[in-house]
Amino acid sequence: MKEIARRALLYDFYGELLTDHQKQVYEDAVMNDFSLSELAEEYNVSRQGIHDLLKRCDGILEGYEEKLGLIKRFDALKGTAKSIQGDLESLKEISSKKERNRLISEIQKKITDIEDI
Amino acid sequence: MKEIARRALLYDFYGELLTDHQKQVYEDAVMNDFSLSELAEEYNVSRQGIHDLLKRCDGILEGYEEKLGLIKRFDALKGTAKSIQGDLESLKEISSKKERNRLISEIQKKITDIEDI
Repeated sequence: MKEIARRALLYDFYGELLTDHQKQVYEDAVMNDFSLSELAEEYNVSRQGIHDLLKRCDGILEGYEEKLGLIKRFDALKGTAKSIQGDLESLKEISSKKERNRLISEIQKKITDIEDI
Repeated sequence: MKEIARRALLYDFYGELLTDHQKQVYEDAVMNDFSLSELAEEYNVSRQGIHDLLKRCDGILEGYEEKLGLIKRFDALKGTAKSIQGDLESLKEISSKKERNRLISEIQKKITDIEDI
């Protein structure tokens, strides 16, 4: 089974592209942490049926990620944003104007990277 | 006809979800600025056929935007990034540490907004 964190990301980015039924089951499995047995009971389907449905949804969602790569782009954005937050913290403590302006220019470059993500 | 800038954005975000043939024609129309007549000749289809194909592609791509809203999210990101660039320019000229740190905190909030986009 695909791990829950990956599924949550896939659902967050591409969930709207599933059918209403798929969305409902996937959301109960991923966001509401229902077990296979609970889902089977809830939707009146066999455990195997639920298992297959979730697997099909994984395939659909991974297919979109392969084509659109939003999770990858978002990871890059998160990484750059985190590094900027660190720079800004440092900036508070730098007393030399020259040093500050050097770091500010670096931050500006990182913001440009974010715009190009 | 849909305007070219909108089509370029749609293609940029969702083009990979078109079939290879659709992608080729749409790209020639939008990125390479072919006219209907040129496309008709290039692909050996009537002008009407090309017109219909482009319209169908518009519909498919707008459908994805309606569900995923990436253009809207990206616009918000661009806006926030631009405003941060302005803040950073101002920051270079502020000599009071207190004032600087106030502005730095504002920038940090905006970076958090970007992470949540």
